[in-house]
Amino acid sequence: MKLVCSKSNLLNGVNIVSKAVPNRTTMSILECILIDASGSSIKLIANDTELGIETIVEGDIKEKGKIALDAKILTEIVRKLPDSDVTIECDSSLKTYIVCDKANFTIIGKPADEFTYLPNVERLDSINVSQFTLKEVIRQTIFSIADNDNNKIMTGELFEINNDILKVVSLDGHRISVRKINLKSSYNNKKVIVPGKTLNEISKILSGEADKDVNIFFTGKHIIFEFDSTTVVSRLIEGEYFKIDQMLSSDYETKVSINKKDLYNSIDRATLLVKEGDKKPIIMNITDESIELKINSTVGSLDEEISITKQGKDILIGFNPKFMMDALRVIDDEVIDIYLVNPKAPCFIKNSEESYIYMVLPVNFTTVS
Amino acid sequence: MKLVCSKSNLLNGVNIVSKAVPNRTTMSILECILIDASGSSIKLIANDTELGIETIVEGDIKEKGKIALDAKILTEIVRKLPDSDVTIECDSSLKTYIVCDKANFTIIGKPADEFTYLPNVERLDSINVSQFTLKEVIRQTIFSIADNDNNKIMTGELFEINNDILKVVSLDGHRISVRKINLKSSYNNKKVIVPGKTLNEISKILSGEADKDVNIFFTGKHIIFEFDSTTVVSRLIEGEYFKIDQMLSSDYETKVSINKKDLYNSIDRATLLVKEGDKKPIIMNITDESIELKINSTVGSLDEEISITKQGKDILIGFNPKFMMDALRVIDDEVIDIYLVNPKAPCFIKNSEESYIYMVLPVNFTTVS
Repeated sequence: MKLVCSKSNLLNGVNIVSKAVPNRTTMSILECILIDASGSSIKLIANDTELGIETIVEGDIKEKGKIALDAKILTEIVRKLPDSDVTIECDSSLKTYIVCDKANFTIIGKPADEFTYLPNVERLDSINVSQFTLKEVIRQTIFSIADNDNNKIMTGELFEINNDILKVVSLDGHRISVRKINLKSSYNNKKVIVPGKTLNEISKILSGEADKDVNIFFTGKHIIFEFDSTTVVSRLIEGEYFKIDQMLSSDYETKVSINKKDLYNSIDRATLLVKEGDKKPIIMNITDESIELKINSTVGSLDEEISITKQGKDILIGFNPKFMMDALRVIDDEVIDIYLVNPKAPCFIKNSEESYIYMVLPVNFTTVS
Repeated sequence: MKLVCSKSNLLNGVNIVSKAVPNRTTMSILECILIDASGSSIKLIANDTELGIETIVEGDIKEKGKIALDAKILTEIVRKLPDSDVTIECDSSLKTYIVCDKANFTIIGKPADEFTYLPNVERLDSINVSQFTLKEVIRQTIFSIADNDNNKIMTGELFEINNDILKVVSLDGHRISVRKINLKSSYNNKKVIVPGKTLNEISKILSGEADKDVNIFFTGKHIIFEFDSTTVVSRLIEGEYFKIDQMLSSDYETKVSINKKDLYNSIDRATLLVKEGDKKPIIMNITDESIELKINSTVGSLDEEISITKQGKDILIGFNPKFMMDALRVIDDEVIDIYLVNPKAPCFIKNSEESYIYMVLPVNFTTVS
């Protein structure tokens, strides 16, 4: 194999596929990036067997062939090459020469036939969203997946399509995030659970431009994202997702309208008095024209008042400050509505169209004067 | 005590004096910042007994007094306050109220009389340099102090004044860095050893502007830096500094002129093949028109050639790549001169005026084909 491409194209490609290289594995071939120049284009592929990424790098193939190279070493070498054309050449003994200007690297590759290619999946059923929309909806929901494997389904997100609506849901037992997106066309209804890891990695690769599209294909066991010159294939999480509609009641006793930034900053200030690991709730005393936020800790206390408009009953309620801040951080509205029932019932932050719904469970607290 | 100042002034002051708050200490009063509003201005002071910093914060004193507050908590509170006026008030029970807009923090302070003020040092003998010059000379030498206490003198830098020349020297047993600065006037000769930690912290506070000055005062046991509204007092390291003139021979057998960036980038590429902790030298084969750089490791090999102009003998010599890169990084010249004697003798990188001299000892290596 012998190929020539620019350093910047190669670096871009290597950075993209590296997202599918596992951090820890006992199979050293999985730590490699496959350079496949056996066809008409230069393909880079990485695959951790759950998630696989393939991207095409522009360049010239001088001699067809393929080789698997350690992803970490390849990335570091390419990153530090001068900005010039790079020649990658390997011989039958797997010795690989990476030459750029006067720098000559020699490393040993691994046989390409040990590499596991991406699964060949039929591309039938697909939807189309902009890169911007997909990147945003991941950011707006990914924080409330569960971070451990006790319940596998909670480590993924529900992607549900109903005609021209894409609904994305994540939950971790303490909170639920729901986002609804209007699609440009209507599609067949479907419901899949996409691993959180896949979504995290994809959002790092997506350029996030509004005028570039992503095609998303669904099959029984896989989801495929196609954008730019890149294809991402991921296994789906098997099983039935939680029936969240039953959890999202719309009854309320108290409705509060509040400036989002004021509330966020105030909770942020309160948390600095709480040492990490200490599960101090933030207590909100909601009365007619203001919320009084209170936190008491061994370090000191904070007492702060924020103006609101309120409908319904007064209420005294406590929250995990992190959960509140996670939800507030990803809402773009300047003024938000909070719906409450009683100090033990879930609280909802949502807009009138319900294009977003964030549910947070309250926590018990003992009132200290 | 009761005072009012803007959040930004207070934050700036707190950030400056925090540099003298020790990370670990058994004396909790040292973890505090003293707010001293007993005179006509608001002073913030921190002091770890080796290094002390005092700065003046603009604001109004409503009621004279002073209080010591935990530096970490104070910093975090001030950082997260809204951009507005801050009132700090404390009562006789040390309860301290920090109020800004609608946020009311209450924390407990420590008695000001437990606090150790900066030593009262006579300001007689002084020199004057720009903030830019001082910040630069620290950056250009600080990397070659010793990072452990085996030899206390090596953890500091020599500041030596001879008429209108300030010479700054650091060394760690493997290398020496020397910088000479022309001062605007002539001063009494002096020679002191300034702790590396003091210089590191000062360079973080210096704005680095060329048209702002620093007054440096010298006494038998202390050095004082005065700039902006800030005073830094540091103990000196006692003892006699190494006689470096004997180590800086000017004989050479080979002189090489080389593009600094090319050499730096090439060594940088070579080091990526070396795992951390592995002491692989970089081998330079210097011949008439080029340096060939070679590194061999279990990961792979790099071979690279850089054009040079050379006077004198050919030489094959090995270096610790980190030591070479540290020196190259802080030299601004595009083309540098390297002076060599033999593979076991020190190598010098210096300009013709000797305003900088970097000495690096070579390392032994076994030639591998």
